[in-house]
Amino acid sequence: MPGPAAAPPSFCDLDLRVRYAECDPMGYAHHAAYPVWFEMGRTELLRQTGVRYRDIEEQGAFIVVIELNVRYRRPARYDDSLRLRTTLVKAGHVKLEHAYELSRGEELLATATTTLACVGRDGRPRGLPEALMRAVEAI
Amino acid sequence: MPGPAAAPPSFCDLDLRVRYAECDPMGYAHHAAYPVWFEMGRTELLRQTGVRYRDIEEQGAFIVVIELNVRYRRPARYDDSLRLRTTLVKAGHVKLEHAYELSRGEELLATATTTLACVGRDGRPRGLPEALMRAVEAI
Amino acid sequence: MPGPAAAPPSFCDLDLRVRYAECDPMGYAHHAAYPVWFEMGRTELLRQTGVRYRDIEEQGAFIVVIELNVRYRRPARYDDSLRLRTTLVKAGHVKLEHAYELSRGEELLATATTTLACVGRDGRPRGLPEALMRAVEAI
Amino acid sequence: MPGPAAAPPSFCDLDLRVRYAECDPMGYAHHAAYPVWFEMGRTELLRQTGVRYRDIEEQGAFIVVIELNVRYRRPARYDDSLRLRTTLVKAGHVKLEHAYELSRGEELLATATTTLACVGRDGRPRGLPEALMRAVEAI
Repeated sequence: MPGPAAAPPSFCDLDLRVRYAECDPMGYAHHAAYPVWFEMGRTELLRQTGVRYRDIEEQGAFIVVIELNVRYRRPARYDDSLRLRTTLVKAGHVKLEHAYELSRGEELLATATTTLACVGRDGRPRGLPEALMRAVEAI
Repeated sequence: MPGPAAAPPSFCDLDLRVRYAECDPMGYAHHAAYPVWFEMGRTELLRQTGVRYRDIEEQGAFIVVIELNVRYRRPARYDDSLRLRTTLVKAGHVKLEHAYELSRGEELLATATTTLACVGRDGRPRGLPEALMRAVEAI
Repeated sequence: MPGPAAAPPSFCDLDLRVRYAECDPMGYAHHAAYPVWFEMGRTELLRQTGVRYRDIEEQGAFIVVIELNVRYRRPARYDDSLRLRTTLVKAGHVKLEHAYELSRGEELLATATTTLACVGRDGRPRGLPEALMRAVEAI
Repeated sequence: MPGPAAAPPSFCDLDLRVRYAECDPMGYAHHAAYPVWFEMGRTELLRQTGVRYRDIEEQGAFIVVIELNVRYRRPARYDDSLRLRTTLVKAGHVKLEHAYELSRGEELLATATTTLACVGRDGRPRGLPEALMRAVEAI
């Protein structure tokens, strides 16, 4: 839903297929696979703004997850085709909050939120790099 | 903290070493590795009561994670020796709540909570199996 | 490269992007991520013939990897866009052999082979299920 | 099999328990979990000689897997207690070869070999670092 000018949308839809190796003896996608998918969603949301996360990291800024909250509502199964909507819900100078909705067709399987912060090569907190701030403001 | 009789403790300490494959390009344990460790903690806590989770599953009851909340405070690194304390904090007829503290020596690296529910082979909610209820009551 | 009639091709090309969680402290895709990708390649090759592996498994036949050989030539990095070519090279009544070529553009990153066998729910070897044999013969 | 003086043994036994998240819908440990275990075996074998792989990496030398061959003989299951024997079988100035035997009690589940090479921070091949060479000679 692009705004009047050419603002990139504040969300990103990513299609993914559940891998066999991601499933557990119940036949369900293991719950630890979901944060990996959320990270893929963030990468794609950022890419929409023309920024590649790998470039940010090469400049010495690392974005770390400091909080993760997931509600698993219905299981996903091997080979299911899923859609993940990733939304940037809040952006400050040192933290970013995203929300996630994972669906199979019309069925909502999981919702989640994450909080990210930025650290330097030394592991110490630092402000978000400028390229990222500009991308975030565009969103 | 064993009770007066011989009640098994309500928590379990598990030592683990961060694997190389669990670490990401930052050199930190990836945040999706933590829920895998928490699951190991629950398995060991249950084992203390004389119950093996694999036996429960063979009887057709599957314990699924329906909620996961993690606070990542400090990063863990490759080859770090960590201690995970898993505590059963609430047990009802259909849900179990656990809390987790992950430490490296005196340093607290992460805290988390999970809520589990029980489903049958058909994926529908059902009560916790008796063997598990008895184990939980013992705790 | 379909044959004269409408035989499905004997190989399948799958595009994939290296996930952050798949990379290790060197910044390379971890070598244990590759067999997961090869498995995805097999799933897609099979799908081309109109067979879904999940259907085979629901009928009680499980295809297990009994041999894996990988040559890692050049590293893959986070966010790299890769192409995996999966080829069925030999099909008997109880075993299947596949070959894999993983590339980034023109650059060949890895080659591999696997041998698969079929087991029943009891873990004992059995012949490949008919649906799979027909798919394989079509290839 | 310690030598006459105090040479560290050329192999290392590591006990490990199969994690739930490592198992697939068949209920078996997924075949991509094995290379992760082999890597743990190499880390422990090296530690026996007084060298920590993380120290080697901090000095700018990275040991990469260039070849992996695995024979899966019998499946491992969730919560199985396994023993992995890792043996250094050949050591040159630029390559190391290891062999692996994975067992559950008396039962041999898998055998494997790997070839490792050393690269610098730039990804180019280089000789093995001296500390590692000395450790290897001790073995």
